[in-house]
Amino acid sequence: MKELVFGHRSPDTDAIDTAIAFSYLQNQLGYDTEAVALGEPSDETKYALNKFGYQAPRVVKIVANEVDAVMLIDHNEPQQSVADRDKVTVTHVVDHHRIMNFETKAPLFYRAEPVGCTSTIVWEMFNEKGVEIPSKLAGLMLSAIISDTLLLKSPTTTELDKKAVKALAEIAGVDYESYGLAMLKAGTNIADKSESDLIDQDAKSFELNGSTIRVAQINTVDLPEAMERKDAFLKAMQTEADAQGYDLFLVLLTDILNSNSKGLAIGSTDAQAGLEAAFDQKLQANELDLPGVVSRKKQIVPPLTSAFEK
Amino acid sequence: MKELVFGHRSPDTDAIDTAIAFSYLQNQLGYDTEAVALGEPSDETKYALNKFGYQAPRVVKIVANEVDAVMLIDHNEPQQSVADRDKVTVTHVVDHHRIMNFETKAPLFYRAEPVGCTSTIVWEMFNEKGVEIPSKLAGLMLSAIISDTLLLKSPTTTELDKKAVKALAEIAGVDYESYGLAMLKAGTNIADKSESDLIDQDAKSFELNGSTIRVAQINTVDLPEAMERKDAFLKAMQTEADAQGYDLFLVLLTDILNSNSKGLAIGSTDAQAGLEAAFDQKLQANELDLPGVVSRKKQIVPPLTSAFEK
Repeated sequence: MKELVFGHRSPDTDAIDTAIAFSYLQNQLGYDTEAVALGEPSDETKYALNKFGYQAPRVVKIVANEVDAVMLIDHNEPQQSVADRDKVTVTHVVDHHRIMNFETKAPLFYRAEPVGCTSTIVWEMFNEKGVEIPSKLAGLMLSAIISDTLLLKSPTTTELDKKAVKALAEIAGVDYESYGLAMLKAGTNIADKSESDLIDQDAKSFELNGSTIRVAQINTVDLPEAMERKDAFLKAMQTEADAQGYDLFLVLLTDILNSNSKGLAIGSTDAQAGLEAAFDQKLQANELDLPGVVSRKKQIVPPLTSAFEK
Repeated sequence: MKELVFGHRSPDTDAIDTAIAFSYLQNQLGYDTEAVALGEPSDETKYALNKFGYQAPRVVKIVANEVDAVMLIDHNEPQQSVADRDKVTVTHVVDHHRIMNFETKAPLFYRAEPVGCTSTIVWEMFNEKGVEIPSKLAGLMLSAIISDTLLLKSPTTTELDKKAVKALAEIAGVDYESYGLAMLKAGTNIADKSESDLIDQDAKSFELNGSTIRVAQINTVDLPEAMERKDAFLKAMQTEADAQGYDLFLVLLTDILNSNSKGLAIGSTDAQAGLEAAFDQKLQANELDLPGVVSRKKQIVPPLTSAFEK
């Protein structure tokens, strides 16, 4: 019985590339799977797919119309997953996030590790199962790790991610540092894109103590240039927050070369107070200074969770 | 920083033996852990511990007084875990059950597979990490798999469990069939035990759509003898249900030689109706006939969940 394999909504390179890698591994092990995506690939992901000769996966909005069972990559929280996930059975999860609001009726395969990227876990699984990684697939998995760890510089990076990057770069036959920088830069071309597209490109929603929090991240190599569009970002964020009912919308503009972020935030008075408590600073004209912050998962979600659960 | 490793409350052989095995593996990998238990071992577990030269693990009721972090074996649902689990961080889970009401603030190691016993997963992990399994530890892990799969006869049994049993029996140097039968029989000596002890020995609570359901399982090689004590069981179940606020208390008396069960049940009118719907039969003087049923997880919890969620 065929199953679909997919990463989270607003897919990043990990969500798309690791779904392709895990689907390949599962098919080698006797499953019948297809990697799909819950959205179009970003410029960064397109760069990686193109470099290693892959097509972008088919985009789906619902899955119960075609399968009974699915495998989740790089997420478990329902609001980050496919709209009709309650209509299908989740048989496998490979993830590197906290577990929240995830429930099943039956036992399943669940593999989570606190590493920088889901592809690092899938790389381990290839090794454990003794399945060879094709060269171009190694390139995709390498791209996912470079993306999630910002070239091994994010505080989410572990020794295992470094080992995986070195092993995969060798299989793929690329210099991971020069390739990685080129791939990350390909994802920072924000000039051609509207603010409403940019704030939706790598965005996740979280339920924190009854509040719906949206956190988007936009990578750049020119933070001042990005900040010139601040008013337009705030306007797009407000429109989106009104439409979706977010209590707080935080957009991180992340300088990937210098590992710093600026935060732009809008939301209810209570939610803004929670954000200010989380980062121990007042919002200045909707702006937060976040020096050294590059990881939503490690440096944004935990302080927000603590502040909102008080 | 030391961590405690433990299985669920009312521990069975999997909960205790696999905690010992996983603690050993983690210590080999550089962690500092101690296997403990949330209750005393059953006669079956004592037989296995004694056979392979182990002491019963220290019993704890709370953990936050001595550690900040814990590793969970063979369970994830909070009501099956240590009383003060919300005061510590869960860093690792190894389990073979559904996931329910389990949430973390941060990423963690989570390894679940739909196999017959948690020790089968830990056996895989020893192999993946290239850590040698000491002979007597292999005996404990073998005992856990024999216990959970009723000597590979339960419908929860997978090919992987069979492979693990054969590999572990060879390392332990025992004939798994004759040893397994002797171990299972050691756990069926119910003559010396009170009804209130027996219904608490291998019992789990489930939250199903707002109802608290308790399901205990008692193995026997003489079902008619066990059923002679029916009235005393029902009385002990009522006392326990009143004290703990269970909406439904189901006790399975399982004939491990012929793979059949009788169910004894008490509870509210609504909950009894749910139970009857789940198994498509009326309770006859608090009794259910459950031919072929030996697995709480695979043959009891899913139909109950479906019936209570209607």
